[in-house]
Amino acid sequence: MNAAARLAARGRPMSRPNPAVGCLIVKEGTVVGRGWTRAGGRPHAEAAALAEAGGLAAGATAYVTLEPCAHVSPRGPACADLLREAGVARVVVGSPDPDPRTAGEGVARIRDAGIEVDILPTPEVADSLSGYLTRARLARPFVTLKLAVSLDGQIAAASGESQWITGEVARAHVHSRRAMHDAILVGGGTWRADQPRLDVRLAGLAHQSPRRVLLSRGIAPDGVTVINTPSQIDRLEQVQYLYVEGGAQTAGSFLAEDLVDRIELYRAPILIGEGRSALGDIGLESLADAHGRWTLTERRQLGSDSFEAYSRSRPEEN
Amino acid sequence: MNAAARLAARGRPMSRPNPAVGCLIVKEGTVVGRGWTRAGGRPHAEAAALAEAGGLAAGATAYVTLEPCAHVSPRGPACADLLREAGVARVVVGSPDPDPRTAGEGVARIRDAGIEVDILPTPEVADSLSGYLTRARLARPFVTLKLAVSLDGQIAAASGESQWITGEVARAHVHSRRAMHDAILVGGGTWRADQPRLDVRLAGLAHQSPRRVLLSRGIAPDGVTVINTPSQIDRLEQVQYLYVEGGAQTAGSFLAEDLVDRIELYRAPILIGEGRSALGDIGLESLADAHGRWTLTERRQLGSDSFEAYSRSRPEEN
Repeated sequence: MNAAARLAARGRPMSRPNPAVGCLIVKEGTVVGRGWTRAGGRPHAEAAALAEAGGLAAGATAYVTLEPCAHVSPRGPACADLLREAGVARVVVGSPDPDPRTAGEGVARIRDAGIEVDILPTPEVADSLSGYLTRARLARPFVTLKLAVSLDGQIAAASGESQWITGEVARAHVHSRRAMHDAILVGGGTWRADQPRLDVRLAGLAHQSPRRVLLSRGIAPDGVTVINTPSQIDRLEQVQYLYVEGGAQTAGSFLAEDLVDRIELYRAPILIGEGRSALGDIGLESLADAHGRWTLTERRQLGSDSFEAYSRSRPEEN
Repeated sequence: MNAAARLAARGRPMSRPNPAVGCLIVKEGTVVGRGWTRAGGRPHAEAAALAEAGGLAAGATAYVTLEPCAHVSPRGPACADLLREAGVARVVVGSPDPDPRTAGEGVARIRDAGIEVDILPTPEVADSLSGYLTRARLARPFVTLKLAVSLDGQIAAASGESQWITGEVARAHVHSRRAMHDAILVGGGTWRADQPRLDVRLAGLAHQSPRRVLLSRGIAPDGVTVINTPSQIDRLEQVQYLYVEGGAQTAGSFLAEDLVDRIELYRAPILIGEGRSALGDIGLESLADAHGRWTLTERRQLGSDSFEAYSRSRPEEN
């Protein structure tokens, strides 16, 4: 199932408006078909995996990260039907689909054909669908806040100088992360001060440069979407994954409204001292309130810099 | 040799005014004697190890982290002579002794007896002697700066609330680190605001509570040494290891004068936002100057907090 979740990542973010789904067809211990949601959402992962498996799908087990769809669309048949017709013996599903056109119906239709269906949720599957599931649950994109700081938490010197805190490897990593998002957001201050390009400057990925969004009270520059408050991210249609890049006031305002799901923290082994802190006001009333909200989920070294990811621990997800 | 360096750590800091030295006597692949500098500096590591080895020392190899002393003192014979008399076949030395009474003379006296002597410096040996070597080289203690911060580098909320940022495991670790230092220093602001006890609150280690030092223009409270500027740490006699605990202005002033050799950074997985930053002005003129000064040398998890140690990279030590 986690291999299917890794396949799903290949579909992100170009599968929009559809979720990035992964599917593996396994027969007698051998993978005979692999599929993931293609650009624009079609073909679906199951259709691609079944096409690769061909006749070998009969009697096989299909692992699919999201409940197979039950609805026929002009763009393709329902995957639940495709799996029935292919004669698979068993389907293992990573997550139910909250889409009302499928919700439970996909699994039911497969079971009706006498095919065994198991639900096997894993954290990796949940992560691979976080944008889609966050839209379904909270009616907004999954929000990642990126911070690039010194050891003492500064994002610029007192003069405003901020190029560079982190090294080349970390900066290339940021570009690869941009390519995994549907949209990038910065605040008006950062927009005016840095005139950031907010594109993906990696060979072969430039076409995946995400949509640009500005948090501002001003008017929208060409090619940029403007929202006035963090909560207006619910208006960003077809955006499953939003990458918030700064500055400190913007980051603080998203945190103050509890609209950050993941923090990606780059830290350089330098000290700045009196400079510009990473975050503006986040509305914290006491230190006790600060605890228990963030869990370290990933850590790696990027050249001389360290990278850590923290996930928001939300009680309702327990 | 690194096993000898770990033995040496047992002598720290109670060996003062002597360096904490470790010694292993190895015969035919078996350790037959182990010693480290005892409280007050005597017996020396070699004397203790030779006493344990007894007659087995004849023909053995002695590993000792610091060049054996060549000077007879009222408190004991010269270790170079003890090694000769014990009839060891070989002596491996981790570091030359900069003490002018020994410098080279200890090794020469052993070689004169026809005993093979090798110098085998390792980073672990250098670390185990850092206080002693820093005093010899720079005429001041080895300075460790402790910082306990949120992910965004804050040491307190805007209200001044700072208890607690890190958890119990990290705080116990701080007490164990205090016990490894000869003196603890805080600034006048922290002294007045927190009235810190600056003692070691760990069972069995309370007697190792270090000397208390205040960086202040004011007068000295009872039982506390006052210095007016960071550079006056050269007046702290018998202090090999100094632990600087805050606050931000004090930490900044030590960094501005390049008087910090090691940073011990505790980080809690919390965000504070607008609060009090870890460091005051450190005199940084441009970001380029900030790079290349600090190297990550240690990282571990302490409950939900992370601990990292950074060493100052000083070109003259290359």
